[in-house]
Amino acid sequence: MQFEVFTLLPEVFPSYLETSIIKRAIERGLINVRVHNIRDYAHDKHHTTDDTPYGGGGGMVMKPEPVFEAIESALGLEADQTPPEAASVVPIILLTPQGRVFNQAIAQELSRHERILLLCGRYEGIDERIREHLVTDEISIGDYVLTGGELPALILIDAVARLLPDVLGDPTGAQDDSHAMGLLEYPHYTRPPEFRGWKAPDVLLSGDHKKIDKWRREQALLRTFHKRPDMLEKTDLSKEDKKFIERLKNVEH
Amino acid sequence: MQFEVFTLLPEVFPSYLETSIIKRAIERGLINVRVHNIRDYAHDKHHTTDDTPYGGGGGMVMKPEPVFEAIESALGLEADQTPPEAASVVPIILLTPQGRVFNQAIAQELSRHERILLLCGRYEGIDERIREHLVTDEISIGDYVLTGGELPALILIDAVARLLPDVLGDPTGAQDDSHAMGLLEYPHYTRPPEFRGWKAPDVLLSGDHKKIDKWRREQALLRTFHKRPDMLEKTDLSKEDKKFIERLKNVEH
Repeated sequence: MQFEVFTLLPEVFPSYLETSIIKRAIERGLINVRVHNIRDYAHDKHHTTDDTPYGGGGGMVMKPEPVFEAIESALGLEADQTPPEAASVVPIILLTPQGRVFNQAIAQELSRHERILLLCGRYEGIDERIREHLVTDEISIGDYVLTGGELPALILIDAVARLLPDVLGDPTGAQDDSHAMGLLEYPHYTRPPEFRGWKAPDVLLSGDHKKIDKWRREQALLRTFHKRPDMLEKTDLSKEDKKFIERLKNVEH
Repeated sequence: MQFEVFTLLPEVFPSYLETSIIKRAIERGLINVRVHNIRDYAHDKHHTTDDTPYGGGGGMVMKPEPVFEAIESALGLEADQTPPEAASVVPIILLTPQGRVFNQAIAQELSRHERILLLCGRYEGIDERIREHLVTDEISIGDYVLTGGELPALILIDAVARLLPDVLGDPTGAQDDSHAMGLLEYPHYTRPPEFRGWKAPDVLLSGDHKKIDKWRREQALLRTFHKRPDMLEKTDLSKEDKKFIERLKNVEH
């Protein structure tokens, strides 16, 4: 899968792309990330990419010309060929607090594309014509204000890449994660069995895998019930799950 | 404000901290970010920081000892002095998909602390005793699965730092942002007034600031109404705002 990032801060990207699972995915040819500097497409002497907003007010606004040209160039389109034909096939995603809120289902959806373009807005503002006539999707990673779309682009690459075949070493690795199974994850323990007087639960050291599976499922339900009851409503639960939740409700009342 | 990050991937941090607003805030002494490598607190020959999970299953689990020692050392506490006394003053935040969901109100809340500790979990799992007996808060940046807590820690630093006095050059800069005012932001336009036949709205070029303010407020309401109606319910709206929303509802039905 090919990720293409359009940014004014290309220097932010290499250090994260050179670590951990993403690095291995790139080395093994499973994903490819190209980072484009929007400034290279600003042709005046100072390579101007932003300007003051019409109507006044604080902050600067990202100019339309360099952004259109950068993206059209990556897609191999002539300038002025709008709306970009290729856009129906290749999503052009603006990272912005105005977008639909990113979640695991959107990560799954994006992982089915062969190529996606990620445009990092500066959050002081981006000229509205970019939003209306160039981008095909807008995504927000959460309800908070950031300095730019660079970290959100990395978040999206990370979340999508780990869903691709062979990226995680363990093919079942992603299935039990929080949110992947619609519940918060059960507690984990590792050695030592006792640390400063706090013991790992006996059941996990019992070797009885049926019991362990049951305990883990119930712990995941318990935790989701207490911390994120909103998630329970959206999840497919078995008969036993529902019984367990009923018991929890009775205990609390 | 002092941020202290505890991670297995310290190399991820410098490139982002050396850009843009964060860089200037550090240079001007407004914030300070110390990155601690948890591996430095693992004392066996191989500096082991993770181990297989009790009870079986995929992935590795972060061991408790190095994490406790790293954080106690940064807080100047003796080992085994638990729960850390300082924890009541200094939040020890685990970045995890299990945490409360980060938003602008939590960013505001955190910005009132002089010092916060950020523990980057590996999302395959962290020993439960770290969660129960060391951390004082758990934060998730959204409902999606990531490889680790490093990007979430940077997101949190970015969102919190820009709320601190003097970090943004323009003192009103943060007030109009999406989410900061409880609405999505109004559209921005900059030069040229016409780009490929698409014009900036006349009102923004009119010089009439009363009209411009009204247009911007209505655009913010309109956009939030269409894209994020959930936000409207949580926002303080004026009488005029409410009238405008009523008109929108009538138009649509």
